[in-house]
Amino acid sequence: MLAHMNAEALEKSVASGEAHFWSRSRAEIWHKGATSGNVLTIREMRIDCDQDAVWLSVEVAGHGAACHTGRKSCFYRKIEVDEDDRIVLRATGDAPLFDPHDVYTK
Amino acid sequence: MLAHMNAEALEKSVASGEAHFWSRSRAEIWHKGATSGNVLTIREMRIDCDQDAVWLSVEVAGHGAACHTGRKSCFYRKIEVDEDDRIVLRATGDAPLFDPHDVYTK
Repeated sequence: MLAHMNAEALEKSVASGEAHFWSRSRAEIWHKGATSGNVLTIREMRIDCDQDAVWLSVEVAGHGAACHTGRKSCFYRKIEVDEDDRIVLRATGDAPLFDPHDVYTK
Repeated sequence: MLAHMNAEALEKSVASGEAHFWSRSRAEIWHKGATSGNVLTIREMRIDCDQDAVWLSVEVAGHGAACHTGRKSCFYRKIEVDEDDRIVLRATGDAPLFDPHDVYTK
């Protein structure tokens, strides 16, 4: 998954050892897994060369799924070009591990 | 590495099979590796659940380094907390594969 952190989210992530992000749509700190139970416990945290991106290696609690669609990964579709030169999205086969309708009730 | 794509960069990446980005600092399409020779040939391209992030699996030409510092990865430093509770950056040991001063002359 890819998500945004602000300074507070980064600080909370480092202090707690659990991934926190900044929800731009809700304009609030987002403790990943607070609703779904799929908390991300940080095993390793890296920062990039120009220090504007952070990479987390995590252990996923609960269903073992980081994506709100119920899948382990948000990147469950490949971008490919078909025989008619059209760009198509193809499933990788990464099946949902939970039903979002059961988990997110609002 | 993490970089931005606009629609044109994504189109050029799909059409050419080589990673193109949008350079926000130079405000131009950036064919990764045009200067350094470290072209990224795309092996697999995925898109995320809300379709605002693309993940590329690539083969790196030239020095085999994606980072402008000469390293394979831009994420060559770990964020850790030391014994005095201070946040520190520690090298992962990912050594430069080229000297940026030899490659980027401007």
